[in-house]
Amino acid sequence: AIAMTIAPLPALITNPLIEAALKEDFGRFGDITSFAVIDEEAQASGQIIARQKGVLSGIDIAKATFKMVDPNIKFETFIQDGEALRPDDIIARVSGNARSILHGERVALNFLGHMSGIASKTQQFVKLCQDTQTRITCTRKTTPLLRSVEKYAVRCGGGFNHRFALDDAIMIKDNHIVVAGGVGKAVSLAKAHAGHLVKIEVEIDYLEQLEEALEAKADVILLDNMSLKDMQKAVEITANRAILEASGNVTLNHVTDIAKTGVNIISSGALTHSVTCLDIGLDFQAK
Amino acid sequence: AIAMTIAPLPALITNPLIEAALKEDFGRFGDITSFAVIDEEAQASGQIIARQKGVLSGIDIAKATFKMVDPNIKFETFIQDGEALRPDDIIARVSGNARSILHGERVALNFLGHMSGIASKTQQFVKLCQDTQTRITCTRKTTPLLRSVEKYAVRCGGGFNHRFALDDAIMIKDNHIVVAGGVGKAVSLAKAHAGHLVKIEVEIDYLEQLEEALEAKADVILLDNMSLKDMQKAVEITANRAILEASGNVTLNHVTDIAKTGVNIISSGALTHSVTCLDIGLDFQAK
Amino acid sequence: AIAMTIAPLPALITNPLIEAALKEDFGRFGDITSFAVIDEEAQASGQIIARQKGVLSGIDIAKATFKMVDPNIKFETFIQDGEALRPDDIIARVSGNARSILHGERVALNFLGHMSGIASKTQQFVKLCQDTQTRITCTRKTTPLLRSVEKYAVRCGGGFNHRFALDDAIMIKDNHIVVAGGVGKAVSLAKAHAGHLVKIEVEIDYLEQLEEALEAKADVILLDNMSLKDMQKAVEITANRAILEASGNVTLNHVTDIAKTGVNIISSGALTHSVTCLDIGLDFQAK
Amino acid sequence: AIAMTIAPLPALITNPLIEAALKEDFGRFGDITSFAVIDEEAQASGQIIARQKGVLSGIDIAKATFKMVDPNIKFETFIQDGEALRPDDIIARVSGNARSILHGERVALNFLGHMSGIASKTQQFVKLCQDTQTRITCTRKTTPLLRSVEKYAVRCGGGFNHRFALDDAIMIKDNHIVVAGGVGKAVSLAKAHAGHLVKIEVEIDYLEQLEEALEAKADVILLDNMSLKDMQKAVEITANRAILEASGNVTLNHVTDIAKTGVNIISSGALTHSVTCLDIGLDFQAK
Amino acid sequence: AIAMTIAPLPALITNPLIEAALKEDFGRFGDITSFAVIDEEAQASGQIIARQKGVLSGIDIAKATFKMVDPNIKFETFIQDGEALRPDDIIARVSGNARSILHGERVALNFLGHMSGIASKTQQFVKLCQDTQTRITCTRKTTPLLRSVEKYAVRCGGGFNHRFALDDAIMIKDNHIVVAGGVGKAVSLAKAHAGHLVKIEVEIDYLEQLEEALEAKADVILLDNMSLKDMQKAVEITANRAILEASGNVTLNHVTDIAKTGVNIISSGALTHSVTCLDIGLDFQAK
Amino acid sequence: AIAMTIAPLPALITNPLIEAALKEDFGRFGDITSFAVIDEEAQASGQIIARQKGVLSGIDIAKATFKMVDPNIKFETFIQDGEALRPDDIIARVSGNARSILHGERVALNFLGHMSGIASKTQQFVKLCQDTQTRITCTRKTTPLLRSVEKYAVRCGGGFNHRFALDDAIMIKDNHIVVAGGVGKAVSLAKAHAGHLVKIEVEIDYLEQLEEALEAKADVILLDNMSLKDMQKAVEITANRAILEASGNVTLNHVTDIAKTGVNIISSGALTHSVTCLDIGLDFQAK
Repeated sequence: AIAMTIAPLPALITNPLIEAALKEDFGRFGDITSFAVIDEEAQASGQIIARQKGVLSGIDIAKATFKMVDPNIKFETFIQDGEALRPDDIIARVSGNARSILHGERVALNFLGHMSGIASKTQQFVKLCQDTQTRITCTRKTTPLLRSVEKYAVRCGGGFNHRFALDDAIMIKDNHIVVAGGVGKAVSLAKAHAGHLVKIEVEIDYLEQLEEALEAKADVILLDNMSLKDMQKAVEITANRAILEASGNVTLNHVTDIAKTGVNIISSGALTHSVTCLDIGLDFQAK
Repeated sequence: AIAMTIAPLPALITNPLIEAALKEDFGRFGDITSFAVIDEEAQASGQIIARQKGVLSGIDIAKATFKMVDPNIKFETFIQDGEALRPDDIIARVSGNARSILHGERVALNFLGHMSGIASKTQQFVKLCQDTQTRITCTRKTTPLLRSVEKYAVRCGGGFNHRFALDDAIMIKDNHIVVAGGVGKAVSLAKAHAGHLVKIEVEIDYLEQLEEALEAKADVILLDNMSLKDMQKAVEITANRAILEASGNVTLNHVTDIAKTGVNIISSGALTHSVTCLDIGLDFQAK
Repeated sequence: AIAMTIAPLPALITNPLIEAALKEDFGRFGDITSFAVIDEEAQASGQIIARQKGVLSGIDIAKATFKMVDPNIKFETFIQDGEALRPDDIIARVSGNARSILHGERVALNFLGHMSGIASKTQQFVKLCQDTQTRITCTRKTTPLLRSVEKYAVRCGGGFNHRFALDDAIMIKDNHIVVAGGVGKAVSLAKAHAGHLVKIEVEIDYLEQLEEALEAKADVILLDNMSLKDMQKAVEITANRAILEASGNVTLNHVTDIAKTGVNIISSGALTHSVTCLDIGLDFQAK
Repeated sequence: AIAMTIAPLPALITNPLIEAALKEDFGRFGDITSFAVIDEEAQASGQIIARQKGVLSGIDIAKATFKMVDPNIKFETFIQDGEALRPDDIIARVSGNARSILHGERVALNFLGHMSGIASKTQQFVKLCQDTQTRITCTRKTTPLLRSVEKYAVRCGGGFNHRFALDDAIMIKDNHIVVAGGVGKAVSLAKAHAGHLVKIEVEIDYLEQLEEALEAKADVILLDNMSLKDMQKAVEITANRAILEASGNVTLNHVTDIAKTGVNIISSGALTHSVTCLDIGLDFQAK
Repeated sequence: AIAMTIAPLPALITNPLIEAALKEDFGRFGDITSFAVIDEEAQASGQIIARQKGVLSGIDIAKATFKMVDPNIKFETFIQDGEALRPDDIIARVSGNARSILHGERVALNFLGHMSGIASKTQQFVKLCQDTQTRITCTRKTTPLLRSVEKYAVRCGGGFNHRFALDDAIMIKDNHIVVAGGVGKAVSLAKAHAGHLVKIEVEIDYLEQLEEALEAKADVILLDNMSLKDMQKAVEITANRAILEASGNVTLNHVTDIAKTGVNIISSGALTHSVTCLDIGLDFQAK
Repeated sequence: AIAMTIAPLPALITNPLIEAALKEDFGRFGDITSFAVIDEEAQASGQIIARQKGVLSGIDIAKATFKMVDPNIKFETFIQDGEALRPDDIIARVSGNARSILHGERVALNFLGHMSGIASKTQQFVKLCQDTQTRITCTRKTTPLLRSVEKYAVRCGGGFNHRFALDDAIMIKDNHIVVAGGVGKAVSLAKAHAGHLVKIEVEIDYLEQLEEALEAKADVILLDNMSLKDMQKAVEITANRAILEASGNVTLNHVTDIAKTGVNIISSGALTHSVTCLDIGLDFQAK
């Protein structure tokens, strides 16, 4: 599944993020250091290099960052998003005006490191499930304002995306059930309300709720923090009448066992809410 | 130093971030689940609870998030930013319209978890240096678009901030020196160019460059990846003629030793670029 | 179905539209006529009145429009969105500063007329299908920038919404099939790519394509411009294995017959792309 | 008058509308269908074709829409804004990357259909007055956020524009007169207040008010819902001392008769508030 | 004319300017000085005081600035826009949280000083023409982004506004005439093109062009840099058939003489392009 | 110092200002005059010419303005920012579509005149101090929304910049001292709070406060409205232990005397708050 082509994010979606990030870093004067100490005609080139093992994500954003600073910067890409990185791999070469490269360096690397960190972590989970049919997905526990790129990074790591936001699927959680008055009633209300292209997912905490969810014809049932044994029973009972998603305590140690229960989906907030930046640097040569 | 009052971020700076985060999560229809399954008059209340040890950051943003969704939500704060959290501590109580609370929950928690994660990590470093005069600072390796809140979170953890962006201090790095033609020359160019309120920092990789930096009267000298021994020598040679900052390989294991060399500042990108979300949840009761 | 509560649009989604509309009408000076000829202390009140039969939509937006101009304006609502309007029905009463009411009048009425026009037209179609299980939905043929409020207006009229945009469901049309190389292949590609909460719809032009679509397990199948007879056959063949949507040539004359074929969904672009404003006026009294 | 060159809208005005419309349709991931089922290298071409008789408006916006999605798309225009359309006329040819064309298709057609719908309706009215000196104009009853393009579309149909907004002419309506205390007094207040480039229009409901308006030297007098006979008398009495505008109940059946009374202007809100989309499609060929 | 009520600018127009100005001054952390040295509970009050003779403009913007920083600040206004200022006049009193007042002080005073500078200069010209019927107007030579508030300030000084922008009147200048091929031809083209509420002004450099402009029925004729004698002749020839505007070299020394020629309008770019800030300060008392 | 290369403003910072200024001038239809009277194919060229002695600032912004209107406009620059202007100097040549040049003319000249006015005034002060080591700086008394370009213009005139905003240096003024309880205490609070790259400036009104400020180790001390004699004494007492800044009553008559006291910095709000536009015009030839 990792080898599948990854749908790119349209520039109309990523450009505003890149522009905001550059403005955040430029402030009101821009890079006063480079203006002060680098000659305006000086040329340079640099290599974007992996310093760690992992999976690449964000290379088009890095390229667009430099191009937004200076359209004359030349940017050659050697590794594509979703591909493996080993230490010292040359990911891309940037060349052109020395000031321009220095202006854009930090923002480009901040995106690359963050997104590749997510992709790399995702792939660890994906590989541990590769002998099963189970998919790894993210959640809505993303860094504010970066959900689009973080969900893209999950895809780069071979994962899949859960719903994007509150408006593109119905997801009935424990809190909803308490107020609505039961799994079955909540799913029925949702079915009456939802458009025909909106799927309905419901969270259950106990195996006892499963039958009610199945009867109400939920499309997806989330098994929250269940034991491996209960998950396995849920798979048997469900018998493909709904998609089953496992959630809670998803660690590298447990994920293979969870997948082997036969659940369809394993979702983990940590893929996006607890990101270790992948170490990627720019090695710079003056010309 | 941790007890010192933390300068709050003005609402004019945080509100656009909160609004953008809510819009990201609302999409074009908002929370279709709660609209479908929760009665519009239903009331509820919830407690924001720490599930882990750490330091709180972002409570005003969490409050403003709920208020932006619905000004009638009542939000009582029991713990302030910068204060310690133990598991099961009740941080705040949210009450009001059930739909409204559910609409804002995820965004509020995403901010709280991310910011408290930064504050908590920062404080671990700060405490390991508490018997020295050395300060812990962040860098510009922040999550794109969130620099203001991440730098604030570092302050909540007892750390200090490095320059905010490319425009508010001159920081001459190895790449600049290569192109500019030496430490002394670069610092001189910077001094001629900079306003009288702009400090000048220069990075050196070898002890041999220290004298040149001191002679050029850099305000701050960054010792990049130096050995403990070389840092100690740098402190002696400098004799308070400049501020010394240590950077590179700053881990919980090494930080006390680095601080004991007598450097003034220890800076670490990992405080903000590799964040482990602090686990904070909302326990919800229907009324 | 019309009586069901209509999920409101969050203010965070509608306020930017209202603000942009007011700015469009205020230009750079605002309402120079009222400033010139109306005393700044003058008070007035007005009644928002239906001059035609129809269904109301947009009353919260009308209210928010006046409140955005002047928070001191008093706005009492007598009829709610989704309720029937007869000529001369008093929908709401606006009172307060005379200038303020005049400043906001046109924008409020432009929203009300446009949205109620959509709701009224939708309800005509919905009523003609009320003895069947078939739902009426809109499409993506909406007025640029107003999709959120137009889709909301469709719901006010008792209709349902199709997907909101290109990103929240997979919809494979004739053009996609030509390039992808067939219905079955396209649906399979989509299934491999889509997240578990994304539904897949495929358009077919001939009954012959139906089996292929069913075998590929499309969630929804669009019958494009088919005869009543073919639609009926499609319903029989499908036997609830997929949701069937009829599209093309949906007029008030035909819609009941289409619904009687047993298709689940009838979709019509005209609900939103060809809108006749519902005549709603503001009758104004000086005090 | 129809043949006169139509002043184009500057790209600085239309581009933000196009960008907002594309973002509305792209959401946060863009066109997931085309990404899933169309190969990223696939090429295609399509013809934009009129399926109805009418007048074209919006072709530059359609072109800019595709170019904003992908600057490499080739777009050849065969018919210009303001020109007549017959069924099956080929308006333009779009060619290039198949995904890119599909990404932009709906937004481009939504603009084209809406604007050409306005132009076509306008021209019907214009043609019915072509043997008189009377001009057809729109009003401020436009679709929120689209006033610039809708007023442009009216010009494409051979019509003229009324004031754009509340700030670019003084227009004293019945409501103003009630509060201000009479036609003459209101016009005098306006004259004292207005800059020398601002025209002043006043609405009258009865022939009896005409003399007062003329004496106050209003630039334009709106005859609201008057009988043909009264309009004719108004023309005689006025004797070119002011511009006369007729408004109210302007239908295709009455417009010629109104024009023949000799009024200078006939204005109609329906040109923009009740738009029937002109049917324009994209016929797509894979290569 | 000075005593006439000045139409206020709507908050929807001024608030975005105030917010942008505050963000410009707050940067990314806000007022770090006050956060560092002022206790968060400290209260203070201050008086906004004129240090120079002049005319007030911008008091509502100053008030809104403080309110935007902190809605709890109390702001009492003693002098209104358009009223005279003498040295030491107390314009307003601000009281509340000490930090909040300091956060907003500079932005509020920057607006007040700039706008009152324009109003004061305008009034000098207006007073020198007070025994004539001639009006003083500004031009489009305004500070970029501030045209709305600058034109408002001109009105506060007793002046009138010329057209706001390129789109709200037709103004044919020498450059247009060169390309269009003559005064008469240009005015005729304009008349065919313009809506019925758009006035047409034409610039002439020589008395010889006057008759052509009058015959073409221009609404306004700009006499550019003409001698007093030629202006007088122009007034006689025109005999109220058009509005005459004098422009070029309008100084305090000449303006009365120009007005006495009988021209209707004297316009001056210097009113807005060369502004001397009026000295207005905030005297601050801690409580 | 004037000859030193001036750090340019990044396009990411200036482009939004240019775009906002063009939109301000285009309104909703753009340049209706040129559309009406100039043929769309007409070509023209013009020379941007100094009509006064001064210093150029803003030429890149002028160029970008025309390019934003029409990328095909050719713009050749003959004089660079920071260079001297004499009357009749040809600064640049603009050629291309006649309408396009006319569309952009006013905005380009408004920027050029305003910025060159600031640069020219700054240089007058700089030249009067050229035999000393004293630098001329601006303040935060800038025109709202234009601080970036105004501070840049000061640099073009050979001046230096003070802090940009409230967030990039600590500046303790008399008001702060009153509330904080003394110079020494305020500086100490600031030092405890500030990051290591943030300088601390304190304002003193009396020579008696100097020693306290020096002891507290303020980086910069502002001598507010002191006599020449007191400034001289301050220089002696300080003996380079801090940077001394003189402020208040800085006129062309006094500035040399102030500089000769030996203070390091002379700051003046008038450089940016009271700007006399430099007269720069566009002489236009039709082709």
